Amino acid sequence: MASKRPKVRTTVEIYGEQYTIVGDEDIGRIRKIAKEVDEKMHEIKDKNPYLDSKKLAVLTAVNAVNECMKLKEEQDRKLKNKRRKSN
Amino acid sequence: MASKRPKVRTTVEIYGEQYTIVGDEDIGRIRKIAKEVDEKMHEIKDKNPYLDSKKLAVLTAVNAVNECMKLKEEQDRKLKNKRRKSN
Repeated sequence: MASKRPKVRTTVEIYGEQYTIVGDEDIGRIRKIAKEVDEKMHEIKDKNPYLDSKKLAVLTAVNAVNECMKLKEEQDRKLKNKRRKSN
Repeated sequence: MASKRPKVRTTVEIYGEQYTIVGDEDIGRIRKIAKEVDEKMHEIKDKNPYLDSKKLAVLTAVNAVNECMKLKEEQDRKLKNKRRKSN
């Protein structure tokens, strides 16, 4: 079913810079995501103080994609187990 | 159980820059993640040609964290449904 929610435009601050996010997510969710990205960038900075903010952002994206991939694999594994049991 | 895999050091290219990733993930996985981040950055660049690469990377991280959050919520929802059914 297509989402009927109107597009929301929210400005958030991540690592000292303003970003305008346009999407159908609610504002609270966008702020939560922005906070998480900001925190992850600071975490990586603490461990690698020599990295510039672009590299920090790229490594934050790498971490997030990795976490996402693991979750997807876990879901696939559970689904396969479920199918195997029901056969 | 703690992972006994040795730390792996891999160099990948993301959006024209080299990154050395150290972790216990295998090399194939790290390359797959790097490719995904690189592709996402190019996708966002196509839609927003005025953005610099730091902002592109931050928005790629925002997208990945959002996707991850949705997956987690889906898993939680399924778990709750399963518990409700078994009560």
